[in-house]
Amino acid sequence: MKTIRASIIGFGAVGQGVAKVLLDKRDYLRGIGIDMKVIAIADSRTAVVDAQGVDLASALSRKKETGAVGSDTISGTEIIRTVDHELVIETTPTNIETGGVGLVNMMAAFERGMDVVTSNKGPLALKYGEVMAAAKSSGSYCRFEATVGGAMPVINLACDVLAGNRMISMEGIFNGTCNYILSRMMEEQAPYEQMLAEAQELGIAEKDPSYDVEGIDTASKLVIVANSIFGMNVSYKDVTVTGITRITPEALSLANADGFAIKLIGEVNDSRINVAPKLVPLSHPLAVGGTLNVFSVQTDLAGPITITGRGAGSIETASAILSDIISIYRN
Amino acid sequence: MKTIRASIIGFGAVGQGVAKVLLDKRDYLRGIGIDMKVIAIADSRTAVVDAQGVDLASALSRKKETGAVGSDTISGTEIIRTVDHELVIETTPTNIETGGVGLVNMMAAFERGMDVVTSNKGPLALKYGEVMAAAKSSGSYCRFEATVGGAMPVINLACDVLAGNRMISMEGIFNGTCNYILSRMMEEQAPYEQMLAEAQELGIAEKDPSYDVEGIDTASKLVIVANSIFGMNVSYKDVTVTGITRITPEALSLANADGFAIKLIGEVNDSRINVAPKLVPLSHPLAVGGTLNVFSVQTDLAGPITITGRGAGSIETASAILSDIISIYRN
Repeated sequence: MKTIRASIIGFGAVGQGVAKVLLDKRDYLRGIGIDMKVIAIADSRTAVVDAQGVDLASALSRKKETGAVGSDTISGTEIIRTVDHELVIETTPTNIETGGVGLVNMMAAFERGMDVVTSNKGPLALKYGEVMAAAKSSGSYCRFEATVGGAMPVINLACDVLAGNRMISMEGIFNGTCNYILSRMMEEQAPYEQMLAEAQELGIAEKDPSYDVEGIDTASKLVIVANSIFGMNVSYKDVTVTGITRITPEALSLANADGFAIKLIGEVNDSRINVAPKLVPLSHPLAVGGTLNVFSVQTDLAGPITITGRGAGSIETASAILSDIISIYRN
Repeated sequence: MKTIRASIIGFGAVGQGVAKVLLDKRDYLRGIGIDMKVIAIADSRTAVVDAQGVDLASALSRKKETGAVGSDTISGTEIIRTVDHELVIETTPTNIETGGVGLVNMMAAFERGMDVVTSNKGPLALKYGEVMAAAKSSGSYCRFEATVGGAMPVINLACDVLAGNRMISMEGIFNGTCNYILSRMMEEQAPYEQMLAEAQELGIAEKDPSYDVEGIDTASKLVIVANSIFGMNVSYKDVTVTGITRITPEALSLANADGFAIKLIGEVNDSRINVAPKLVPLSHPLAVGGTLNVFSVQTDLAGPITITGRGAGSIETASAILSDIISIYRN
């Protein structure tokens, strides 16, 4: 049995999902030889640190009741720099301008030779090469399945399960909010603003939805896919991006009459990395509805492989983080 | 660089696909530290053995021109028992009555502590527990992604990429021949016999199609899925099986008018392992057409995950074998 001491840095929906999943799967993990001990949790203002292991159930209920995970004022970055542990679970919010505290945290972890599993797109969408070089030079693992497609395995599918295949091109739907709005606009023949409001009411869209509806989120994910699966060396600024805000119910209606849906498609191939609304035949594997995500990759040996799943959700994203943790520490 | 000496036992479409892929990917494999040396190839009547490494291009053209891979008369089983090597790539044809020579070969390999990567469903559909126990007791790897769904990763997706998830249930289409015939019957409003004949002409169905159209092939794959992904201990006889031979174009037409397709669905859940034609909504992820296969699994954390790909084909199946080889010997 290996004891892995971990911190959870960032305790919003994803961080709390991770805590729940680690609690639920404690016995399973022990069964495969991994004894996970969370020695610190930090949210944006407070923290709890306990070298003997933080009580995850208490931390979750404290956060729920008081909004704060603990009473310490040590920051996540300081925890990484000063508390001994092996794994940083980095679940702070994405900052696509600078990489934000997530970038600082990941670099701090690699400086100390710690492994990182993250759901934070910012650092990898902005500085993939630097981040991976830092991980490599310190012999650390850096895994990030949760950054793309939530529960839907994309990175590990392409890099592990399809190993040996050359990836030729890929297209997909990587933003459940946009997919929901477009699907509902078509179903209801209703304008963008109305279905955005519905999505906001349901908690599917944020109050400020620009990050999703303008294609920024999809573009960030594409950069991670391009670098990790296609071996490119690109950054967020290399993506051409068009969002969904100017799509009308009339356009959807015309498309539908011809047997097409309009979907916000991200694509990577030799010549471009592009996010834009595209016509997709209704019977095409990419034409999934609701908040589903889909990833379709063209390979040299296996041909086309398409995978569909939930692109968001606290437990779903935590599932991707759990799989990354297992892939690092099993055996 | 690790040198892995391998035999290819069975040199039909899949075995030849493996030889082609190993030839094409030689440099890639060396780049990840695997030097694959094929030291023997056996078809059903002849063999070629060369401890220095068989010339794969010559073997492929010899097989194509003469129908025989070599001039030795040593059998595949004897090669496994007497020639030193680390990996047996077992690609003999499936025998679902007894496990056939494939079962003998796999057991012989484990007796000598060799690893096995196989596309042969028979041994695993009949004696999964015994085979895996033999592998375990000799410290051998036994990987079999190619037995289910061709290029479509099923076993490795569920067991590796979705690690940590509990698999609740699954359904899927695992036979491209049946899917082709049913799709074409619906498109053409034509009877079963006519579309079977078309499939036979195109090489999609065998001369004796009973193995596919009576659901036996799907049932064999389900047993492997049930044992490996769901941790069951079942055999081929535990599956209830209905094939597609009694489906009429009228039934398909009625279903279609209500927004449904009829598909040969294999399903595994707590209460049953079942192969039967089922109504599937046309917009459902399972409603893929042509010869495609699809696998949809319900998990406790990630929710539903659906994957679609080519279920057959020489290079596609070899792709699954290659991924298994890489997963054993990388690092």
